[in-house]
Amino acid sequence: VTTHSFLPDPVRIIGTGLIGGSLGLALRAAGVRIQLEDASPGTTALAVELGVGTVAEPDGPSPELVVVAAPPDVAADLVVQALRRFPGALVTDTASVKESVLVRVLDARANGTIGTGDLARYVGAHPMAGREVSGVIAARSDLFQGRPFVIVPHPEGEPRGVSTLKAIATEIGAVPTVLDAHGHDAAVAHVSHVPQILSSLVATTLTGTEDKAMGLSGQGLRDTTRIASSDPRLWVEILAGNAPAIAPVVREARDRLDGVVDALDALGGTPDPDAGARRTLASLIADGNRGVGRIPGKHGGGTDTFSTVRVLVPDRPGELGRLFTEMGSIGVNLEDLQLEHTLGQPVGVAHLSVRAGREDLLTSELRDRGWTVAEA
Amino acid sequence: VTTHSFLPDPVRIIGTGLIGGSLGLALRAAGVRIQLEDASPGTTALAVELGVGTVAEPDGPSPELVVVAAPPDVAADLVVQALRRFPGALVTDTASVKESVLVRVLDARANGTIGTGDLARYVGAHPMAGREVSGVIAARSDLFQGRPFVIVPHPEGEPRGVSTLKAIATEIGAVPTVLDAHGHDAAVAHVSHVPQILSSLVATTLTGTEDKAMGLSGQGLRDTTRIASSDPRLWVEILAGNAPAIAPVVREARDRLDGVVDALDALGGTPDPDAGARRTLASLIADGNRGVGRIPGKHGGGTDTFSTVRVLVPDRPGELGRLFTEMGSIGVNLEDLQLEHTLGQPVGVAHLSVRAGREDLLTSELRDRGWTVAEA
Repeated sequence: VTTHSFLPDPVRIIGTGLIGGSLGLALRAAGVRIQLEDASPGTTALAVELGVGTVAEPDGPSPELVVVAAPPDVAADLVVQALRRFPGALVTDTASVKESVLVRVLDARANGTIGTGDLARYVGAHPMAGREVSGVIAARSDLFQGRPFVIVPHPEGEPRGVSTLKAIATEIGAVPTVLDAHGHDAAVAHVSHVPQILSSLVATTLTGTEDKAMGLSGQGLRDTTRIASSDPRLWVEILAGNAPAIAPVVREARDRLDGVVDALDALGGTPDPDAGARRTLASLIADGNRGVGRIPGKHGGGTDTFSTVRVLVPDRPGELGRLFTEMGSIGVNLEDLQLEHTLGQPVGVAHLSVRAGREDLLTSELRDRGWTVAEA
Repeated sequence: VTTHSFLPDPVRIIGTGLIGGSLGLALRAAGVRIQLEDASPGTTALAVELGVGTVAEPDGPSPELVVVAAPPDVAADLVVQALRRFPGALVTDTASVKESVLVRVLDARANGTIGTGDLARYVGAHPMAGREVSGVIAARSDLFQGRPFVIVPHPEGEPRGVSTLKAIATEIGAVPTVLDAHGHDAAVAHVSHVPQILSSLVATTLTGTEDKAMGLSGQGLRDTTRIASSDPRLWVEILAGNAPAIAPVVREARDRLDGVVDALDALGGTPDPDAGARRTLASLIADGNRGVGRIPGKHGGGTDTFSTVRVLVPDRPGELGRLFTEMGSIGVNLEDLQLEHTLGQPVGVAHLSVRAGREDLLTSELRDRGWTVAEA
């Protein structure tokens, strides 16, 4: 294995958890030498055993890049230390909240702990893993595949910071995106932190519900609450770390919910309430439609570029295989799939998402082959 | 086709929309004669053309069962009329809200419009379709397959009401469940109406977000907001119709969100806030965990009876087919599947849900056959 010339080498990873470990695995596969450091020697040893890299040696080669892969509350101190310890190296961190880290690095320059030249070597990062597990034992070289890798420069940073991280993001199969610290924190508040709070909120309303009522649960409830299974300890740190960006969005949602409560009270209490009550509910749903339409990708936004074909599939081994083999021979590619079935039922419904315009061909060909395809 | 002796015949369906039309298709397939009525002659004609049944004739045979398949705001009047028009028939309605309909039927008895014997022939129903589309054009005989069919008796009803609807539910492949009107309305408020409100609320927070921020969207956001694409007109009627049952649940959620806003303000504003702020966030997430655990089925509740195996799948026709064919030959049945891939990426990750205990066999056999299976 030879290193690509545009990748920094060696790379020092400080903090060998899920993110540091996965980054190490992915970069090592590209031929980069990985030097590991962790507050816990046991964790470092486990990371070495898992093939993430080698233990950093005091007299080893100086790193070209230092990655601080530690939680937001300790990341800034480790970044400042790294800027002092490795005077030639680019230093980055992978904390999921960026503004509080940058502010503390700027403070270190203001109080003279580091110089302006040191500050220039810092660039923030947030490789999004989309996986709420932790520990190096869960590390995978493909963790960042197809995921956003946010690069967070600041006005006093060297341009090579951004270009080096772009090279790394591309190498590990991630999608590089550049945002400033404030923009990053606001973005993850909207697309991740507030949805987590409201999904958990939906789930809390179910704790006292009767079993029989829970039997009426459908796919909508399952989708809405899927992320409500997340780890409380991890999420308290994430929400606390980004509280200034999350609070205004949650407050706005809360204010809107106040209006919904008033509207429901009016509709439930009087036979002929003010027309404003219905309008409040209608605009909640309509604005929600607009919001969903802004989500890029296969489910949101692109609704007119994909069509869904629903096929009944007997619930026994090999049937889905037969279906997909036949799709392959028909020559229609599957863009997305949702499988819907209820325990104890002998059939499920496969929702096949295909490129718009291909649905008629697929439907008629599948029917010719004996499949039950639901009406469009 | 011969009718099963326990099914009523003929059945009069009043209101030929999605529910009435689908019920007609499903019962007709079982040999039941279906007589159709709708306020709109054009809609009735379309239903006949689609094979739902025949137009009701004034001098035709009397129905054994009348199904009022109309929105909640007109259902009660049509039920009262049907009890008077068809003195021997059992009468039911399919409105998605049950208590307000029952109250108005009881009012009709109290003011002498119908007698106590008429009231005894009424039994409520809510066949849950799980599909937010409307119109007979969308009707399908398999609409109720595997879905809950709620039967809603009242203390003065004849027992044959429940047994007849159980026979119908079973015939059309649905899962019959008996709840009283109040219990039904509270149940759907919890498992359907409040999740709809909060999913729409999440989506409304995205309307003003920058495009670049939306690029960081992940699967969690897509899941949480999937039902926020629902039709505003339909949902205003549903929410307004069940406002008394929904309001207390939404109010409780709003009160809890007040606490979350206060906690976020405290955490964002002061470097060392009260410990209560973190506790508020932790108990939100932890109570959400408990709530999700109460959802029956493959995703909620059964988390320890199923295991997930993640396999990389090249994004070209036939590859999923090959995977499932091989699963079939390994002899491991697929219980659920989620396909995760990002536009423009050459591979996707298939999350295969299999019965707990089968994951090691599947992983090793798939690896032997050359598939890339992610670490557990």
